[in-house]
Amino acid sequence: MSAAADPLPAEFALIARHFRPLAGAGALELGDDAALLSPPAGRELVLSADAMVAGVHFLENDPPDLVARKLLRTNLSDLAAMGAAPLGYLLTVSAPKTTDDAWFAGFAAGLATDQEEFGVALLGGDTTATPGPVSLSLTILGHVAPGRAIRRRGALAGDELWVSGTIGDAALGLCALRGEVADADGFLAGRYRLPRPRLSLGQAVTALVHAGLDVSDGLVQDAGHLCRAAGLTAVIEAASVPLSPAARAASRLELCLTGGDDYELLLAAPAEAAEALRRAAETAGVPLTRIGRFMAGPARVEVLDAAGRPMPLARPGWSHFG
Amino acid sequence: MSAAADPLPAEFALIARHFRPLAGAGALELGDDAALLSPPAGRELVLSADAMVAGVHFLENDPPDLVARKLLRTNLSDLAAMGAAPLGYLLTVSAPKTTDDAWFAGFAAGLATDQEEFGVALLGGDTTATPGPVSLSLTILGHVAPGRAIRRRGALAGDELWVSGTIGDAALGLCALRGEVADADGFLAGRYRLPRPRLSLGQAVTALVHAGLDVSDGLVQDAGHLCRAAGLTAVIEAASVPLSPAARAASRLELCLTGGDDYELLLAAPAEAAEALRRAAETAGVPLTRIGRFMAGPARVEVLDAAGRPMPLARPGWSHFG
Repeated sequence: MSAAADPLPAEFALIARHFRPLAGAGALELGDDAALLSPPAGRELVLSADAMVAGVHFLENDPPDLVARKLLRTNLSDLAAMGAAPLGYLLTVSAPKTTDDAWFAGFAAGLATDQEEFGVALLGGDTTATPGPVSLSLTILGHVAPGRAIRRRGALAGDELWVSGTIGDAALGLCALRGEVADADGFLAGRYRLPRPRLSLGQAVTALVHAGLDVSDGLVQDAGHLCRAAGLTAVIEAASVPLSPAARAASRLELCLTGGDDYELLLAAPAEAAEALRRAAETAGVPLTRIGRFMAGPARVEVLDAAGRPMPLARPGWSHFG
Repeated sequence: MSAAADPLPAEFALIARHFRPLAGAGALELGDDAALLSPPAGRELVLSADAMVAGVHFLENDPPDLVARKLLRTNLSDLAAMGAAPLGYLLTVSAPKTTDDAWFAGFAAGLATDQEEFGVALLGGDTTATPGPVSLSLTILGHVAPGRAIRRRGALAGDELWVSGTIGDAALGLCALRGEVADADGFLAGRYRLPRPRLSLGQAVTALVHAGLDVSDGLVQDAGHLCRAAGLTAVIEAASVPLSPAARAASRLELCLTGGDDYELLLAAPAEAAEALRRAAETAGVPLTRIGRFMAGPARVEVLDAAGRPMPLARPGWSHFG
């Protein structure tokens, strides 16, 4: 008897059906051991990897297309934070053997939608079974002009602190999905499920800012990263932090300041860059709001209320191993 | 009250303690949103990602240093299969909150050992909690001269089929760890737990072979990939397949031919390359054995016994979603 090369085992059929249509140039149709990529000449590569686990980073019954798009977008947000342009991504999916084909189809459809929107393609990856919850990992590749990536370190005393978009919607959205916060039109839940990586804005401000990152673990905690990297104190005026109408209505200011999943850009820039930043934000179609400043002092974040008094905060942000 | 930037939450402390010492140039000490890498000028990048889950790809009580080394080595084997030289890697670790510090310390120590052995460094990644088993994902980056990567497609009728090292030890090693096969000196278990990526050999044969891959899902199934990519029949002479003394003693030939986790190179090369292949193997310090040939015919693998009769095989190899 001979072992026929066809039919393929189910794992390969699954990859061929759902993931091969997502494969970009260099992915070799996901048929080789690795992808081949000619990096853009004269550019630095920017690389980041994030994991997402069902029950931790998304809800078990979340629509699979939104799960896929959130995974891709949180990684794209890391590129945005560095001021990089996206190139492509690798993906590993560990799923229970009972996962039905519709889940994979929805997951792949979400990736297809966002590949189109953000101009990236799948380069490679792996699909395995797990006795646990769905576990996803995505590695994103981007590129930036040499030496021009936005770094966390570099803020100077006197720099102003800016943030894109609105803050707190995603944290409130998670509360809304749990039934703890009203969200009649689904705006908050949408912000939790579908981050908007600020790629255009990030690329537009690389020459204007001294430092920056994306807000993923909570505004205050992430501002703390800039403080530590610079050895400076940051003062945030809570009343200046941009809130959506839905977030204002929720009246959960502390949650907004410390909740995670915003995926907005937090930037340190000299005062003289203010006008250029506003123009860049207008071009990118994303609001950019000045919310505080850096000053000499110990590496910490001070949050002031509307009257200029220090605000008590129970915790600065989110940690997985707390 | 102010939110002090120090002390850091436990997740950051864990990364600083165990993973920052592994960070290479470009990883920015794992302190930024992404890594920066200047790709080697005039080279193609080679990229691959693999996932490993406790209870599926390794045993729950496997020593964490060996788990880490297996994860890194299976990815390095993908580079070896393409004839690429390693550059660096990104890693995501999803672990139960109860995972103790000693596990992470052992895991990182294993990575440190193999970083030294294979000349790679950690570029970035993510650490998250999971309610399920430990789930790992690693993306490897390598480089190769443009157009010189070994591909799965390209075998020609008349090409000979070669395989490196010995086949079946890892599948028998898993049986040994389950107590089903004798393994007094632990050789078989060692081959299961610690693959040996054939990086030097892969790089040495890029100009000699028409096609190749690494044997991860079983010799017969992986030979089938070369057949499908070329539209050819492969004939494997079972008696020629190189077995270790321990594998010969086990007398489980079918398991050896179809079990996974070998991470040896399977290569298609013209007959006139035989002498150069032997010299390359000698230089790399890895045996290379001719085990069959490609011929015109339907895309399938025929396995012949010592008498030249077709061997019955229950299944060609390993699939996660069967």
